[in-house]
Amino acid sequence: MSNDRLNHNERETISEMTTGRLSVYLRCLTFLESCSQMTVSSAELADRFHLNSAQIRKDLACFGEFGTRGVGYNVSRLKDHLVRELGLDRTRRVLIAGAGNLGMALADYGGFNDHGFEITALIDNDLTKIGRRSRSGIEVLAWEDLPTIVRDQQVDIGIVAVNADSAQTVYDAFADVGLNAVLNFAPTQLRGRPGVKVKSVDLRINLESLSFYLKKVEDEG
Amino acid sequence: MSNDRLNHNERETISEMTTGRLSVYLRCLTFLESCSQMTVSSAELADRFHLNSAQIRKDLACFGEFGTRGVGYNVSRLKDHLVRELGLDRTRRVLIAGAGNLGMALADYGGFNDHGFEITALIDNDLTKIGRRSRSGIEVLAWEDLPTIVRDQQVDIGIVAVNADSAQTVYDAFADVGLNAVLNFAPTQLRGRPGVKVKSVDLRINLESLSFYLKKVEDEG
Repeated sequence: MSNDRLNHNERETISEMTTGRLSVYLRCLTFLESCSQMTVSSAELADRFHLNSAQIRKDLACFGEFGTRGVGYNVSRLKDHLVRELGLDRTRRVLIAGAGNLGMALADYGGFNDHGFEITALIDNDLTKIGRRSRSGIEVLAWEDLPTIVRDQQVDIGIVAVNADSAQTVYDAFADVGLNAVLNFAPTQLRGRPGVKVKSVDLRINLESLSFYLKKVEDEG
Repeated sequence: MSNDRLNHNERETISEMTTGRLSVYLRCLTFLESCSQMTVSSAELADRFHLNSAQIRKDLACFGEFGTRGVGYNVSRLKDHLVRELGLDRTRRVLIAGAGNLGMALADYGGFNDHGFEITALIDNDLTKIGRRSRSGIEVLAWEDLPTIVRDQQVDIGIVAVNADSAQTVYDAFADVGLNAVLNFAPTQLRGRPGVKVKSVDLRINLESLSFYLKKVEDEG
């Protein structure tokens, strides 16, 4: 399909799919580096991590300088390049709105608070929650202090971890204080604003995919 | 790319991507039905929900019987068909292992406990948690009772909501009691067993995608 036949949304989806694959390659290279492996070919990457080698070569074509024909890619240099490409060479500060079970779980989630990301604050409008801490030590601050926190802590990304009814209010407040990137966990469609990127996590889709698999097994069995 | 050039893993990924899109179409059709709309064309679906109309036609080609040229698809009939296709016309019983913040959040997550899914139990090996209930009323049962619960409640899907260190133990126990589908939230790679489908949710990839977006904005600005 040629690029000019894709609408903006589709291009964005494809760009996000590529980003997702770059994230996967980064995980593989980080693992290989931890095993002190110096070089890796696209065929070996594909084989060891159950990926598609043609797709790898296509995705990494523009990073050709890190590869030598017949030898493969230099693991550390390619890894460092992917880190920069994904903008993970600086630390993104992340704020979570909603200190219920979900917000608390996300505050302590492995991977949300290292290698490029730092959870700087949890906020909630429930006065009884303010001052509590997540297991990893992130303190719950007052919802009213959002503008101050975002400015003082130079927050880059806001996470919506409130219920569906409050999600739009939180998103709008994030946009008002100048956040450009929002990760939404509330099972609702948000009315977006120009320049404020939203990524919504639809956890149910994962269950539906498993249901589809179970149905296939049942139909075949 | 022709199908015979794809390895098993890639085919599976593509099948999962299609499943993901079927889930999206189902959400759109459910919304249209709630607005009492009788028919919809692929062009209107694409336009209203920011999808790609060529992709819609391709994905729904095998459901042609629900469409009339120039009129579009019958909303309710196509929706009902997608429900059956995704295996959502029966109820899948879901058990969550781990009654920490994440398990509690998932037990109450909108969409995990309706239209085809029913959270039947939360289990944990922490005796102090047993007998507690999630906000929506799901009771925490003892980890030791896993085999009995799975049998008596006819559980179909197990969710791993424990930390990375315990995830493999939970997965193995799920496999031992005969569960065929597992949704893993622990940030670790599980050693799978034949016939036991695992879907791992990597929440960090969403943050990396936002980081990629922020970097592009910064580079352009």
